Amino acid sequence: MEYPQETFVKTTFTPGSFWARRREVVRAQTLRHQLQMLKKTGRYEAFKLGWHPSYSDPPTVYPVPNHQFWDSDVAKWIEGACYLLTDDFDAEIDEAVQELVAMIRGAQHEDGYLNIHYSVVEPGKRFTNLRDMHELYNAGHLIEAALAHHQFYKNDKLLAPILKYVDLLASTFGALENQIPGYPGHPEIELALLRLYKVTQDAKHLRLAQFFIEERGSPHGGKGKRHFYDVEREARGESEHDLPMCYPAARSYWYQQAHKPIINQETIEGHSVRAMYLLTAVADLVRISTSPDTTSGLAGKYLPTLHRLWSNMVEKKSYVTGGIGAMKKWEGFGIDYFLPHGTDEGGCYAETCAAIGVMMLAERLLQIELKREYADIMELCLYNAVLTGMSLDGKAFTYVNQLASSDQDLSQRHEWFECACCPPNVTRTLGFLGGYIWNQRVEESESEASAKASVNVHLYTSATLDIRTKTSTIQISQKTDWPWNGDVDFEIRAEESESESEFDLELRLRIPGWASECWEITPRPNKIDIRDGYLYLDPEYIRKYPKFHFSCSMQARIVRPHPLTMQRVAYVTRGPIVYCVEDIDHPWEGDHFKRTIFDPKVPLREEKRSDPDSYVALLANKGALGQLDTSAWDGQIVADDQGEGIITGESRDLCFIPYYLRANRGGRGQMRVGLRVL
Amino acid sequence: MEYPQETFVKTTFTPGSFWARRREVVRAQTLRHQLQMLKKTGRYEAFKLGWHPSYSDPPTVYPVPNHQFWDSDVAKWIEGACYLLTDDFDAEIDEAVQELVAMIRGAQHEDGYLNIHYSVVEPGKRFTNLRDMHELYNAGHLIEAALAHHQFYKNDKLLAPILKYVDLLASTFGALENQIPGYPGHPEIELALLRLYKVTQDAKHLRLAQFFIEERGSPHGGKGKRHFYDVEREARGESEHDLPMCYPAARSYWYQQAHKPIINQETIEGHSVRAMYLLTAVADLVRISTSPDTTSGLAGKYLPTLHRLWSNMVEKKSYVTGGIGAMKKWEGFGIDYFLPHGTDEGGCYAETCAAIGVMMLAERLLQIELKREYADIMELCLYNAVLTGMSLDGKAFTYVNQLASSDQDLSQRHEWFECACCPPNVTRTLGFLGGYIWNQRVEESESEASAKASVNVHLYTSATLDIRTKTSTIQISQKTDWPWNGDVDFEIRAEESESESEFDLELRLRIPGWASECWEITPRPNKIDIRDGYLYLDPEYIRKYPKFHFSCSMQARIVRPHPLTMQRVAYVTRGPIVYCVEDIDHPWEGDHFKRTIFDPKVPLREEKRSDPDSYVALLANKGALGQLDTSAWDGQIVADDQGEGIITGESRDLCFIPYYLRANRGGRGQMRVGLRVL
Repeated sequence: MEYPQETFVKTTFTPGSFWARRREVVRAQTLRHQLQMLKKTGRYEAFKLGWHPSYSDPPTVYPVPNHQFWDSDVAKWIEGACYLLTDDFDAEIDEAVQELVAMIRGAQHEDGYLNIHYSVVEPGKRFTNLRDMHELYNAGHLIEAALAHHQFYKNDKLLAPILKYVDLLASTFGALENQIPGYPGHPEIELALLRLYKVTQDAKHLRLAQFFIEERGSPHGGKGKRHFYDVEREARGESEHDLPMCYPAARSYWYQQAHKPIINQETIEGHSVRAMYLLTAVADLVRISTSPDTTSGLAGKYLPTLHRLWSNMVEKKSYVTGGIGAMKKWEGFGIDYFLPHGTDEGGCYAETCAAIGVMMLAERLLQIELKREYADIMELCLYNAVLTGMSLDGKAFTYVNQLASSDQDLSQRHEWFECACCPPNVTRTLGFLGGYIWNQRVEESESEASAKASVNVHLYTSATLDIRTKTSTIQISQKTDWPWNGDVDFEIRAEESESESEFDLELRLRIPGWASECWEITPRPNKIDIRDGYLYLDPEYIRKYPKFHFSCSMQARIVRPHPLTMQRVAYVTRGPIVYCVEDIDHPWEGDHFKRTIFDPKVPLREEKRSDPDSYVALLANKGALGQLDTSAWDGQIVADDQGEGIITGESRDLCFIPYYLRANRGGRGQMRVGLRVL
Repeated sequence: MEYPQETFVKTTFTPGSFWARRREVVRAQTLRHQLQMLKKTGRYEAFKLGWHPSYSDPPTVYPVPNHQFWDSDVAKWIEGACYLLTDDFDAEIDEAVQELVAMIRGAQHEDGYLNIHYSVVEPGKRFTNLRDMHELYNAGHLIEAALAHHQFYKNDKLLAPILKYVDLLASTFGALENQIPGYPGHPEIELALLRLYKVTQDAKHLRLAQFFIEERGSPHGGKGKRHFYDVEREARGESEHDLPMCYPAARSYWYQQAHKPIINQETIEGHSVRAMYLLTAVADLVRISTSPDTTSGLAGKYLPTLHRLWSNMVEKKSYVTGGIGAMKKWEGFGIDYFLPHGTDEGGCYAETCAAIGVMMLAERLLQIELKREYADIMELCLYNAVLTGMSLDGKAFTYVNQLASSDQDLSQRHEWFECACCPPNVTRTLGFLGGYIWNQRVEESESEASAKASVNVHLYTSATLDIRTKTSTIQISQKTDWPWNGDVDFEIRAEESESESEFDLELRLRIPGWASECWEITPRPNKIDIRDGYLYLDPEYIRKYPKFHFSCSMQARIVRPHPLTMQRVAYVTRGPIVYCVEDIDHPWEGDHFKRTIFDPKVPLREEKRSDPDSYVALLANKGALGQLDTSAWDGQIVADDQGEGIITGESRDLCFIPYYLRANRGGRGQMRVGLRVL
């Protein structure tokens, strides 16, 4: 059982390559920028437990105090810093981490409790509102920070107090007489506890995670045999009509995936980040299932749920960018096929953190079942819905990632947010990105004379993976200009300490869905062995051809959303990249490309560009047939059948750029993915 | 200033004609059925002020008690009964009206107060929650009932107690020191008070209506210079987060058009019935403007608002049937162009009462400005969004009128509703329908020897209008098989009491927008004088041709919704009728016609039918090209461009029937207006 947060250290990105450059920006710019933001906003010193004037502010998202997430903002920054310090030590960042850890230690109560809000603002009210408050969510991120800290610093300065806090949580929550039979409104601690369990092997860490997951949504929890959030609300003396801002109605427990036990949930519902974090933890439970048979035990219990909810999400509730969640009110999923593209068209949320959550879930599912469908979505999110969340300079971020801008919601980034979950989430994700590229499994024989390894290659980029056994060091290198060029040169170098030792390596290369009809490998294996979209290269092939060339055709594609979404648009993609148009390339545009008619039959010409970064633009000569003419509808509800629609104005050239690059080159914030077609 | 509720008595529908038959069903069946429902549910005896067990039920739509509208249910039934008794006296109905009136009189408090809920369930709390409770809405309907009762019975048995209640309201509400500076959450009393004012000419009735309209939405009302609903809520000790079920967020005063003064509202928002009732009252204010100049006085103040909100509604927030309101949560308007067709596609509400409200507003606007655009919408609503609200047998009703059924919301009618606003609203509307057909204006000379009359003909049906002056009786008759045939024979008969008296009649015939290119009049006037879609026939023409023939071409049309609605569908209409398909004619259908592809180029053959009623069906031989094939999207978010889409299965015949006839012939409740086109 691997975690990308641990395995990433085995991957070295080749300097100057796509991801090496992005990670370098994060290391050199983003970490510092975010540290400055933590300091400027009061978060940095918050664990000193002094009063901050903003603590009196009314909540922007009732009833959650705006500073409620501060613990997690700090924790995620520490976590990201620890990953990035592994690459290159940085004294300023190191000092801040150490100081923050000291403050966190100082904030801990005698009994282990550790939370800013309930220490400063509402002392005495801890654990009285699991539904809305983010106490346990914060605890989860503190655990993840502690694990990253422990991994990098090799000391217990953060892990020790966090373990003490977890002891308190483990004794506080559960089904025993004197315990609270509750679970967090925002899942996160579950996946953190399972990661912790892997390190500690402490049964109570597994038990607590499992309790939170299994008790969640029970209609007859605790002694009262009722829904915990009902019991808890009544204990607070609140009316069920006193609605959290994200609830469209009383008892909207589906908002937090607590309307029924997870195994009974038929469709993916509610807040999309919560859903992804919860399912990631469920996948982790499956992974630690003791039974190799996936039809029994924890796997048998939870795998059908993961399959069902994943399919519902991908087929009916995802955007072309991999973004999820159409509904702003609850930052989450709408009904099946309800996927409008922008605020003035009915919605589109696609929060950065949610796409990060999809990547987490996909990675876990890939460890359970090596299937291209998971990796395709993981790659899609990475290059689009996640990468668009940060500017090229690493100092500006998005929270919501719509497919179309509007006057209300321009396509633009911000240096920080009041609820600042997304910026440090991108930081930490890029920090351990190496763990997403591939995963490995090594089996050493008892004699230690031979070892077998298998490496699943999910993503392509210029990077090297180190595999060490007791007797060998194997390096697997990829060299490629991905995502702009689909050629990948693989090289396997083995250094065996003893000449008689033997090392069997099996490589499994993902053939991306978008290249499934058009890929090559040279030299060609005698037998092409493809299973679930992965090309299996056996040890014989690897020994014979330690250098081989794998190639996926990257050419512009026109794709369309499911017809039941009612979005009569075409998307331009190329390889894993989804494209958009921006007003900066089309100064004539003034209505967010809402009425631009695209001719998907016009050839798309590739143009390599290097400003503001290397990328391939796609140019459609006279690709805009003109503008939609709606004058026939003036003053009336319907108009006579216009057949294919009426077009006005002249044809114009279109320039498509990668969606993740949007809002990096100036302009008026008008942008659209998916243009109207006839 | 006319009211259709008064003028309808001058119209006689020709027996056996379309509307005469519908009204006969209402008179003979619906009134009795609804009386039975009033008795069965406890409403009939509720004014006796006894306790009813349902008073303890939790509110279905928090915080409004389910019985809150009972006063208005009874009032609307009385009102409708009084209109229909004018046609044919009915002893059973008469007896029930008299008994109800006696009970209402008995329920009145010493000081004039009159309300079931606050007399029985929450005595002492009257006027403490204008925002949510329907006290003043109920009062409005009682006023309307009293006016209808007074008109038919020519006595004050109901009007007298209601005037006493209005006296109490007039002294209670206003801007004076000891008055409540509030206004009703659900407008209705405003239009009722203005009708009352026309009868009483009591200045305080006008003042109170005007106060409610002008104070509404003021951000600095009353002494506190704050929004009244804030002040009122705080006085009740409620949190702003204690949300009425129809509020998506705290202080969603736009739900009831009280987010700002009406003259400052740029778009039509919120609960659609409330919006229509409020705007109808605003139009009435304009109509009693003393200035003939519409740019000054009340007209100058309010007419631009009426124009703006009407246009926004028609062009961007209305369905092909005339139905309004996409959003179920607040039973009202969504954002511009957000008009999905059914529950599983994002919504569609189109409440029957709202369409009745559109008819009311359109009729008032027609009296201010004789423009076809208003009458077209009035006709559209009448034959579609309103008429669909009642079954052919007059005993079953709809509340919501979606364009597409779904498994969650089948196309079906119900005998009654817990919130039963719609059924008696249809009853009273058909009761005074004659008032919608045409309106007249008579000017008699001082010498009484001559008179001038103008009659605006908005709707065509077989009916006769009586115009009486001191010296003449004029009858204008239409004879037509509308809405199935567009030929209309007009005949004007004048009986002048003195041979030397002279009568000048000008007729203005609406040329429906759907026939604007294809209509005829025989004999043809020397000069065709069309203004704003009305054909003006001068007295000379009428004298010369007391019989003439007017004809509008009725043929099947294919129309489409505005492209920005993203609904890639075609609608079939014919004359004023919007058509739909039902599963009973297409037994192969199992998915609510969601994937049926319609070929709008296939000729539509007309078939006259007489079962279950006379109508014209439209048959499209092989009109269904097959079913949408979405298999390319299985397991993924997008699929390669399929161009025009993939169709599977064979072509099939389609049968379109009038939307208002749906759910009258059995079947499984699968229905759709607007089929997908390529």
